[in-house]
Amino acid sequence: MGEFDLIDRYFRRPAAAAAGGVALGIGDDCALLAPTPGMQLAVSSDLLLEGRHFLSTVDPARLGHKALAVNLSDLAACGARPLAFTLALALPAADEDWLAPFARGLLALADAHGCALVGGDTTRGPLAICITVFGEVPPGQALLRSGARAGDDLWVSGTVGDARLALEVFRGTLRLPAEAFEAARLRLEQPQPRVALGQALRGIASAAIDISDGLLGDLGHVLRQSGVGARIEADRALGLLALRRLAADAVPAPIQLDCVLAGGDDYELAFTAPPARRDAVLAAGAAAQVALTRIGCIEAQPGVRVVDASGAALARAFASFDHFG
Amino acid sequence: MGEFDLIDRYFRRPAAAAAGGVALGIGDDCALLAPTPGMQLAVSSDLLLEGRHFLSTVDPARLGHKALAVNLSDLAACGARPLAFTLALALPAADEDWLAPFARGLLALADAHGCALVGGDTTRGPLAICITVFGEVPPGQALLRSGARAGDDLWVSGTVGDARLALEVFRGTLRLPAEAFEAARLRLEQPQPRVALGQALRGIASAAIDISDGLLGDLGHVLRQSGVGARIEADRALGLLALRRLAADAVPAPIQLDCVLAGGDDYELAFTAPPARRDAVLAAGAAAQVALTRIGCIEAQPGVRVVDASGAALARAFASFDHFG
Repeated sequence: MGEFDLIDRYFRRPAAAAAGGVALGIGDDCALLAPTPGMQLAVSSDLLLEGRHFLSTVDPARLGHKALAVNLSDLAACGARPLAFTLALALPAADEDWLAPFARGLLALADAHGCALVGGDTTRGPLAICITVFGEVPPGQALLRSGARAGDDLWVSGTVGDARLALEVFRGTLRLPAEAFEAARLRLEQPQPRVALGQALRGIASAAIDISDGLLGDLGHVLRQSGVGARIEADRALGLLALRRLAADAVPAPIQLDCVLAGGDDYELAFTAPPARRDAVLAAGAAAQVALTRIGCIEAQPGVRVVDASGAALARAFASFDHFG
Repeated sequence: MGEFDLIDRYFRRPAAAAAGGVALGIGDDCALLAPTPGMQLAVSSDLLLEGRHFLSTVDPARLGHKALAVNLSDLAACGARPLAFTLALALPAADEDWLAPFARGLLALADAHGCALVGGDTTRGPLAICITVFGEVPPGQALLRSGARAGDDLWVSGTVGDARLALEVFRGTLRLPAEAFEAARLRLEQPQPRVALGQALRGIASAAIDISDGLLGDLGHVLRQSGVGARIEADRALGLLALRRLAADAVPAPIQLDCVLAGGDDYELAFTAPPARRDAVLAAGAAAQVALTRIGCIEAQPGVRVVDASGAALARAFASFDHFG
């Protein structure tokens, strides 16, 4: 199958060109977007490699979903509304059994968020997926990493740490009951980007980031760029682990806390907001149908303090994930 | 060196955030572009892999240049003005001796075209470079592949085929005099995207495409999408080969014609325009300081006819390049 047949068969859809904000879709040297006049365009790009970002055995439909989800999660963290994306794909071969479900998973999530595939590139090579996503946000309303202030609450959406449990099962370092493993695996392979929540938090959150490399690591970017520190209550943070009860026997509490604080691959939002906005925050979570947990607060003193129920600091190191560490 | 130090050291520059049309550069979940209200945004994405799109021995500064050049060439083919780009980079290691010149070559070309690096991704893996580029074009003025009409002239910018000569020397199938090889190699490794020409051709050219996979192959997209065919005069096409004289003894004429018609990696523009616009076309070329060659014309009959000086069709096949052929 030729490169162009491949694009035609799996990725081009008549609807794409007609999507809102898209003047010209797949098939020319460039796609043409028509952003709403006056809106800013939020842009993010992620490169996923087999073996590094996903296992070779992953269901291609879930991989298609995840490849776009991690990018939509960046739009969510900025409070942007998804508009369109490009897909650059390196494939060992034009394998129909792989491409059909990959495209299905990818485009199903795209459709769910009104995000049109407008162009890209295909080439032969070791499996690599580079997606660049575009969204719109009103000028000055994007959620940034730099806005956290001492006294703000620290919030996290959804559940955190479960994806890492699944990864450790795949790595053979952990065993989970079948039911818990399937739930954890779904979190690892099919994360739900918090797109509606991000938009609902515009004007409410003072800073936001998406948790992709681990809560503490990503929170660190917010703290450095805001010039502040944070205090995290360990017990509240542990409540972020969806599988806490199911995994209680299989996973010791300290490892549960590691997974929550430094697990990675969560694609939830960590954000800050003044205590006076708690009702607004909870209303945003309710509107977006996402549970929100307040796990601590922002302090003037730089660094992160993880404390127990008595307020005493836990004397432990939590490693984050750095691709060139 | 950590992932974030790497980005800071080689790719982040204070000027980027202040560039025209860029509201927020590297360092947050998304970059924020502020397109000129009412303009359309042209978007293109290319993925370059070591071994497939470039040799492992290539000078990293030239590779940095080329990685952006092939994307700017897509903007040129649409007549768009460059605005910004993202870079997703997979590297076997954070090697300073490679990164410093790669970034230098990349950013020098970016500066020459006022195109700011606004974000991206870095990860460890086999060398892969995915660039997504954004440009602006007034609504309805983008050069498309679908506008060629029977009777139009067929034009090509600059020189074509020389890059393939260099590739064949690297492959060992061809020998060139040292001077000719260095010139050909420069065409292969450091193509000059025809950005000014593309913009100058707005309102003049009826269709355009950039020649990346070979003149005939890329022209074929224009012909199919326009529902027309073309006649190419072989002698005029041969005039596109810059090294024709230097390579005359080393390269038989039929191979020269192969290189011109199906060589690939040229990053020149092929475009069509009505004969009544010849003066305007030549003025656009002069304004952009790029030589333009009229190599044939568009005909109603589908397909391409390559003809000799007497008008007789050459009975030969010219293979184009397809990444999944």
